[in-house]
Amino acid sequence: MRKDYLLTPGPSQVPAEVLLRLAEPVFHHRTPRFKDMYKSLTEKLQQVFLTKSDVLVFASSGTGAMETSVVNLIPKGKKALTIESGKFGERWTEICAAFGIEHDVIKVEWGKAVKPADVEKKLKDDPNIAAVYATLVETSTGVEHPIKELGAIVARTNAILVVDGISGAGANELRVDDWHVDILVVGSQKALMLPPGLAVMTVSPKAKALTEKVVKAPAYYFDLKAALKAAGKSDTPYTPALTLMSALDVAVAELLKEGMENVFARHAKFAKAARAGFEAMGLKVYPERPATALTTVLMPEGIDGEEVRNIAEKKYGVNIAGGQEKLKGKVVRMAHMGYVGPMDIIIGLAALEMALAEKGVKITLGSGVAAAEAVLKQ
Amino acid sequence: MRKDYLLTPGPSQVPAEVLLRLAEPVFHHRTPRFKDMYKSLTEKLQQVFLTKSDVLVFASSGTGAMETSVVNLIPKGKKALTIESGKFGERWTEICAAFGIEHDVIKVEWGKAVKPADVEKKLKDDPNIAAVYATLVETSTGVEHPIKELGAIVARTNAILVVDGISGAGANELRVDDWHVDILVVGSQKALMLPPGLAVMTVSPKAKALTEKVVKAPAYYFDLKAALKAAGKSDTPYTPALTLMSALDVAVAELLKEGMENVFARHAKFAKAARAGFEAMGLKVYPERPATALTTVLMPEGIDGEEVRNIAEKKYGVNIAGGQEKLKGKVVRMAHMGYVGPMDIIIGLAALEMALAEKGVKITLGSGVAAAEAVLKQ
Repeated sequence: MRKDYLLTPGPSQVPAEVLLRLAEPVFHHRTPRFKDMYKSLTEKLQQVFLTKSDVLVFASSGTGAMETSVVNLIPKGKKALTIESGKFGERWTEICAAFGIEHDVIKVEWGKAVKPADVEKKLKDDPNIAAVYATLVETSTGVEHPIKELGAIVARTNAILVVDGISGAGANELRVDDWHVDILVVGSQKALMLPPGLAVMTVSPKAKALTEKVVKAPAYYFDLKAALKAAGKSDTPYTPALTLMSALDVAVAELLKEGMENVFARHAKFAKAARAGFEAMGLKVYPERPATALTTVLMPEGIDGEEVRNIAEKKYGVNIAGGQEKLKGKVVRMAHMGYVGPMDIIIGLAALEMALAEKGVKITLGSGVAAAEAVLKQ
Repeated sequence: MRKDYLLTPGPSQVPAEVLLRLAEPVFHHRTPRFKDMYKSLTEKLQQVFLTKSDVLVFASSGTGAMETSVVNLIPKGKKALTIESGKFGERWTEICAAFGIEHDVIKVEWGKAVKPADVEKKLKDDPNIAAVYATLVETSTGVEHPIKELGAIVARTNAILVVDGISGAGANELRVDDWHVDILVVGSQKALMLPPGLAVMTVSPKAKALTEKVVKAPAYYFDLKAALKAAGKSDTPYTPALTLMSALDVAVAELLKEGMENVFARHAKFAKAARAGFEAMGLKVYPERPATALTTVLMPEGIDGEEVRNIAEKKYGVNIAGGQEKLKGKVVRMAHMGYVGPMDIIIGLAALEMALAEKGVKITLGSGVAAAEAVLKQ
């Protein structure tokens, strides 16, 4: 018997009630039953993301909705401004390049957050920027970008703000309307507590107006105008992944029952406990502006993070993520988003304490757990 | 208590064993466990489609894989040849148009199948055709196109044959390698007995070679080269819908246990029984070359098919489909693919007998069922 714990930054754990909904018999999607479910789901998602914007649900991973946000929103002669600070920020640039969409890039050092003034300057210098592409939580580094500040800046211009909230939205504090986020993209397998396979997207009136200026978007499956039109009738242009949508309805109902302010507070407390635990173990939190959804910590000099995470997984059944690309081996990343309780923090820290000790790191067993407990019991 | 029966041409019924697999706890996708599952699944899919071609699985509806087959396969200066004979054949043309891909169209009257000689002539007249886009089962009309004959013709040229087998592949006889199908696109929610949310695609060596001639495909999420490269390592470029994939593994294992020749024979028998039943009821089968996966029947003069299907659904819980676009109200479509047994044919015919009688059609109650029984008991 092996008992597994999933503390990776996506996929995340899924409550049993949600899993069981996935097993419900399939029904047809061109029916009042589907429309009712779709309507109820999108209304709930509006409450989760604190917005009156239109909500779309795609049968794709989050990357599909990112593509949708790029190819449908840059009119001829205009350009995109992408913000890169890790693997996922770079994805915005890669999508622009794949479709030959003109773009400018703000490159931020890995582990750092974007400076809002840099975005403000770019927008001032170049009135052709139609959309700014940012990331709420850069999952590869664990940085949380200052979306509220970016929103205030972009809202004063003709450009729109598009935010990849794939990791984090629904865990990190995020107020789509108050913060002037025109498009938010979210994946199902993170804070929304669902398996992978769905992407959710909110579209503000300002973003909708911009789609009208794009004469011929290179899009069919990800045609935003078609998706918005169908959504107006609680419908989808192509066959929806209705089983996942039905299960998502269960998951977001749980979030709303808790209340979004409580959801944000719960995640903030877990992040604080995780950071306190790591620091008590003598580890350094890597990013300068650490996310609420996950914590990235640097490994001590000479210790391979891949080996540490392998011990945690193989010996204790605790799945945490290693580093990606230039951070491979140098960090481990522990998620605390979605279907997470205080004991998940304890589990993650305990497994890492034992794995690090096994690798010869001088560590007081229980020290990380103790520091986390001190936060969690408050 | 209401007992429902799903006899629509997608989504189709899903066996309980498959539904329950959807409820398994989520695991991480960058792991040996995922790679093993992916490898086992794609090997099974090769056996289902009788091919040695590479198999890809996308988190999208079938339309996403159709888009993949268009945008990645027409080199600059070359063109597509699409075959239209209904709503889904037209989709090939629409995708070409959305991405500005040069294309020629063979228009076939609704209800008819394409004449292989017409395709042969086009290919002879225009050496710039790089790919022919056909449909196995045109779900909107119920026609089955002569894919084997098209394959023999296209194989003698430099062009590739791309087949939308979304409805039908896995039910209708289809031999990817023997019939020279270079790309087959399949949806999960049809004969593969899964809920919607996955698309499957087979890619022949000839099609792979053609992707290499496309310098810069307008694709990111649906980048075929990236997908093929990842699939070589039993991996996916973006987060896979692993819960659906795991359930698909259960479903295709069932097909292979039955054996594909038996699967084809079972579906052929059900199609024969359904047609015999409809004809005994005095209804005319609409298409000239009726599919094995579904039967489309014309409504008697003055009878609205939408009203008939509504009675069948509301009064008897039996979901059959109405007509689409120009066939709306004129036909009903009953699927018999996937998780279907002899009693599904009886159920569908009985519901239609009662619904038609209620609408005043002169019909001998039980006549359709009797004719179907005569076939089913053979």
